[in-house]
Amino acid sequence: MQPEEGRRRVMIEGVTPEIDAGRFPIKRIAGDRVVVEADVFTDGHDALSCLLLYRHESAAGWTEVPMEPLVNDRWCGELTVTELGRFRYTVLAWVDHFKSWQRDLAKRVEARQDVSVELLIGAAMVEAAAARATGDDAGWVKAFAETLRIGGDEGAHQALAPQLAALMYRHAARPDATQYDKELGVVVDRPRARFGAWYELFPRSCAPEPGLHGTFRDVEKRLDYVASMGFDVLYLPPIHPIGRSFRKGRNNSTAPAPDDPGSPWAIGAAEGGYKAVHPQLGTLEDFRRLVACAAEHGLELALDIAFQCAPDHPYVSEHPEWFRRRPDGTTQYAENPPKKYQDIYPFDFETEHWQELWDELKSVVEFWIEQGVRIFRVDNPHTKPFAFWEWLITEIKRACPEAIFLAEAFTRPKVMYRLAKLGFTQSYNYFPWRNSSRELTEYLSELTQTEVAEFFGVNLWPNTPDILAEYLQYGGRPAFMTRFILAATLGPSYGIYGPAYELCENRPLAPGKEEYLDSEKYEIKHWDITRHDSLRRLIGQVNLIRRDNPALQANHNLRFHRVDNEQIIAYSKSSPDGSNQVLVLVNLDPHYKQSGFITLPLEDMGLDPHQPYQAHDLLTDARYLWHGARNYVELNPHTVPAHIFVLRRRVQTEHDFDYYM
Amino acid sequence: MQPEEGRRRVMIEGVTPEIDAGRFPIKRIAGDRVVVEADVFTDGHDALSCLLLYRHESAAGWTEVPMEPLVNDRWCGELTVTELGRFRYTVLAWVDHFKSWQRDLAKRVEARQDVSVELLIGAAMVEAAAARATGDDAGWVKAFAETLRIGGDEGAHQALAPQLAALMYRHAARPDATQYDKELGVVVDRPRARFGAWYELFPRSCAPEPGLHGTFRDVEKRLDYVASMGFDVLYLPPIHPIGRSFRKGRNNSTAPAPDDPGSPWAIGAAEGGYKAVHPQLGTLEDFRRLVACAAEHGLELALDIAFQCAPDHPYVSEHPEWFRRRPDGTTQYAENPPKKYQDIYPFDFETEHWQELWDELKSVVEFWIEQGVRIFRVDNPHTKPFAFWEWLITEIKRACPEAIFLAEAFTRPKVMYRLAKLGFTQSYNYFPWRNSSRELTEYLSELTQTEVAEFFGVNLWPNTPDILAEYLQYGGRPAFMTRFILAATLGPSYGIYGPAYELCENRPLAPGKEEYLDSEKYEIKHWDITRHDSLRRLIGQVNLIRRDNPALQANHNLRFHRVDNEQIIAYSKSSPDGSNQVLVLVNLDPHYKQSGFITLPLEDMGLDPHQPYQAHDLLTDARYLWHGARNYVELNPHTVPAHIFVLRRRVQTEHDFDYYM
Repeated sequence: MQPEEGRRRVMIEGVTPEIDAGRFPIKRIAGDRVVVEADVFTDGHDALSCLLLYRHESAAGWTEVPMEPLVNDRWCGELTVTELGRFRYTVLAWVDHFKSWQRDLAKRVEARQDVSVELLIGAAMVEAAAARATGDDAGWVKAFAETLRIGGDEGAHQALAPQLAALMYRHAARPDATQYDKELGVVVDRPRARFGAWYELFPRSCAPEPGLHGTFRDVEKRLDYVASMGFDVLYLPPIHPIGRSFRKGRNNSTAPAPDDPGSPWAIGAAEGGYKAVHPQLGTLEDFRRLVACAAEHGLELALDIAFQCAPDHPYVSEHPEWFRRRPDGTTQYAENPPKKYQDIYPFDFETEHWQELWDELKSVVEFWIEQGVRIFRVDNPHTKPFAFWEWLITEIKRACPEAIFLAEAFTRPKVMYRLAKLGFTQSYNYFPWRNSSRELTEYLSELTQTEVAEFFGVNLWPNTPDILAEYLQYGGRPAFMTRFILAATLGPSYGIYGPAYELCENRPLAPGKEEYLDSEKYEIKHWDITRHDSLRRLIGQVNLIRRDNPALQANHNLRFHRVDNEQIIAYSKSSPDGSNQVLVLVNLDPHYKQSGFITLPLEDMGLDPHQPYQAHDLLTDARYLWHGARNYVELNPHTVPAHIFVLRRRVQTEHDFDYYM
Repeated sequence: MQPEEGRRRVMIEGVTPEIDAGRFPIKRIAGDRVVVEADVFTDGHDALSCLLLYRHESAAGWTEVPMEPLVNDRWCGELTVTELGRFRYTVLAWVDHFKSWQRDLAKRVEARQDVSVELLIGAAMVEAAAARATGDDAGWVKAFAETLRIGGDEGAHQALAPQLAALMYRHAARPDATQYDKELGVVVDRPRARFGAWYELFPRSCAPEPGLHGTFRDVEKRLDYVASMGFDVLYLPPIHPIGRSFRKGRNNSTAPAPDDPGSPWAIGAAEGGYKAVHPQLGTLEDFRRLVACAAEHGLELALDIAFQCAPDHPYVSEHPEWFRRRPDGTTQYAENPPKKYQDIYPFDFETEHWQELWDELKSVVEFWIEQGVRIFRVDNPHTKPFAFWEWLITEIKRACPEAIFLAEAFTRPKVMYRLAKLGFTQSYNYFPWRNSSRELTEYLSELTQTEVAEFFGVNLWPNTPDILAEYLQYGGRPAFMTRFILAATLGPSYGIYGPAYELCENRPLAPGKEEYLDSEKYEIKHWDITRHDSLRRLIGQVNLIRRDNPALQANHNLRFHRVDNEQIIAYSKSSPDGSNQVLVLVNLDPHYKQSGFITLPLEDMGLDPHQPYQAHDLLTDARYLWHGARNYVELNPHTVPAHIFVLRRRVQTEHDFDYYM
């Protein structure tokens, strides 16, 4: 034991938030608060003082914030993270002898005891503080010390002055203070890391007429359309040259036609690899122009990072040491035995040359950051080592803290959570398969109301090019409306793969499959985005509602409410200051009208249970006057399957008019 | 990053049991199992192998036990702690390429694919293992390698042999294995650390007739009585010389009569301190004789450790630096302002001479260990520093792992738990104030069914010399029976302060106080232990039941059951092998007869819900034939307020008799 440890009497434990004993940081957005709690206690009956310490990683010293006791030895303090990057926080506490002394003196004085000796004890403490104090404080502390030393009734009176308590706290000696044995981290991201509506499209399908290969210039012309729907992020599948050997044809056929374009995720050909652009899309210059043009439309471009190679990728010949060899001299292709994916070569992350491989892959991300990209959707991160991602994301964000990484990790829960902990900003998740009220309530509560919310950024996608969920296959247009409204209002971030989504494309490859028939992954499509049955107006309306209502821009504020019909789901979100209350009701049955009574916890929501309040439906502009906790709702999937209400705290009564005064 | 870390692909997290991120050990009794679980996973689809590693701290190397996968990436293994002292355990896991290869090969063979190249890949792995294997295994592995290298149908057949899997597991290369980043501790104690019935008595009250000061020789004569009630531990309040200055008189009076004996907790006088024996009790030689004599009666002696001094304690003059001085030159006495305890000087653990103080206090414990004592009841440990206790208990148990420390920490929950975590074997707790069915169920569930059970040893006391709970004051003899049966059957360890308890002494100092009137702490009592209304026969009977029924000797096995009358509490315990099922029902109402229906989870208890079973009341020897989960019970507090049933799985039917064959 170190000599100083024996007198360190304060214990600090149970600090929250703390992920895996401090192994991983929590996540916040610049401007967010971090409320820190800790169990802090000492032996005996001495009073404690307790500070929250924090600093941006670039700052030299700690900023100190007093923590206040709650009940049961729990203390609480909070900090606000102001800059991007990493913050650290910890807790410091000490036995505060002056605080104990003042507390006890008050009891002695009240019991009319002789306190002359106690005042001398106090005077010594105040004199010691006088030696530490500077400026005006020094004079004040010295004056108090003299009064205490004189003693008497005046000495006792001054000894209990709150001003003295404040002075002594400011100049506390903190002898044998205990600092919590961990420094905990906060990764601070920009607002887009939490709030954003994503739109995925295949650039090659944006040509003005059927049969042509779309280009970046064509995507520029599509920007008006995407922006008119109110999206924030435009995500493109891989834009690199596509491999030719073992190329997949339409509907994933292994016998492609000569003009089949291949899957964009089969990356690399003679024209280049990860740092090259598919020649039919345009040039790197065209791409940079698209980035700028999108920004003018309020859209940020997101690129796909898919770290696997087509057999033609230049790496395969230039760096055979990054791939596994088979005894017959061939390169090991991807497999899920007995299935073989001979169009894909996975990297061998167990290679002895892993450090060179990591460096090269990092340079790929850096290359696209240089082209103006800050958002990356990472394909199948769960098939590459965790240590690699932790290193890559940490290194990239050190230089570029605005970078955002979305994990396309459709895998087992602990693997998904680990990827989030180690650095992925957001993640896909099981939303596509959560359909019933109970499933949605359980899953979204886990994502938003437990420790998971501290590290797992939710991005809700009702469809992707790989996932045409069964609910969409069978529920018709109402199902697409319902799942869209759920995604856009349950999560601050969500996305759709379009135009398949707004055009309600619902034909699966085969019954029981979630693959699209004639999937855009393997062929160029020509979508009629002007169709009158498109959902584009609803989408634009909801995205506008999202931008107007801060309640819909946060994650941890989701609360589900009781409805006596389980076909209707109800949940509310409120803005941090409580001024914006949004209540969403969705009919989960795409076939029939459903109705029921919803019960709201009015007081928790800041509503006076004895006053009527207004439920203003932002989708239809209808306004309902509701009374009390229990109210009737009715939703028809064939008109609008949902209400997105703003609740207004009170409605006008005669008291509000001049004549009543 | 270290060069080897980049290829370490397996993640290990969520290990249980693990207290405060491994800061503290769990507790077990020699012979106990430790079931260890962990979340273990890697990227991609490779198979894993996972080991539980453990060792006694005296052992040089790890013992390895395979862990098996449960669901959702959770793995499980178990070890048995065989020796006293400390064990350590951790988890090791690696990507098992051979296991993946064998799993995949089976799928390829089933799909009738050509596996010739795969067999060459496997052959290379087996050849590498052959180089590592020794003895018979070496030959076997080499033979397998040759068969695989030959290939064909026979090669494929042999490649899938379970024997090959076992050989490859035994000689696994474990490349880039991940070892969990913590080594977790287990403190292993002897059985008495968990199971024991304690009896507290004041030796000075054991004289054969009133007016005399009892002696150790008198206590020897009382041993038959204590042993006849089936107790295991005889705990004595401090046996040291008692201070004279500021001595407290009867009923805590500050004006003692000349012959008042003082409180045994005011330790130290001219005759000596912590290492001396009160002259009126006898000599150190007498004490050692008592220890031996108690042992012959099956009783182990427990001593009190109360680290505070009477003003006459020799330390006060010999080591003034261990006490706090007041500005008037006096020594600081204990206080709880405005109350003053001038008969007690607390040690100043913040002294610069704390190391000498710690060493001296340790030598006190060592001194009594030399006299044959192994069990210590520690008075108010929460008023001395946590670091001191952690050091003291660790040091003492390093030399004497049989030592048991009971914390008399009636304080806030987190402080009590911290003391348990840092080393106290057992602790007093809130049992004296948990009276209703709901209070008992909630509290005992917390103590036995949560992580708390891993470190907090429960010792249940219905009374102590400081605590005459209100329930006992007003409930009469039935209340004493009820609380005794609860303590003795809810906890494997419990204690009573006698003869006050068995004689149902229930007069408080004043209404609303829990102090005894004419407390034995301040005067010598003469108890009539032969009184006909004594509970000694019931106590003896219950302690015998405890010894006969292993179910009552464990802690984690407590389960509460539903009764439709909340005045009746029901709980069961089963032995580790399930062969001993004890069901206890207690009427918590000391005034009226209560009845109701109990509902048992028969299948969880190993009982066939379709067969009748026998409930044998060990208190009355009555036997009930019960059918199904729901049965009627009725308990009269004025006869016996409880059932202690042994449940027997089936009763005889005609099928059991010869004539039915």
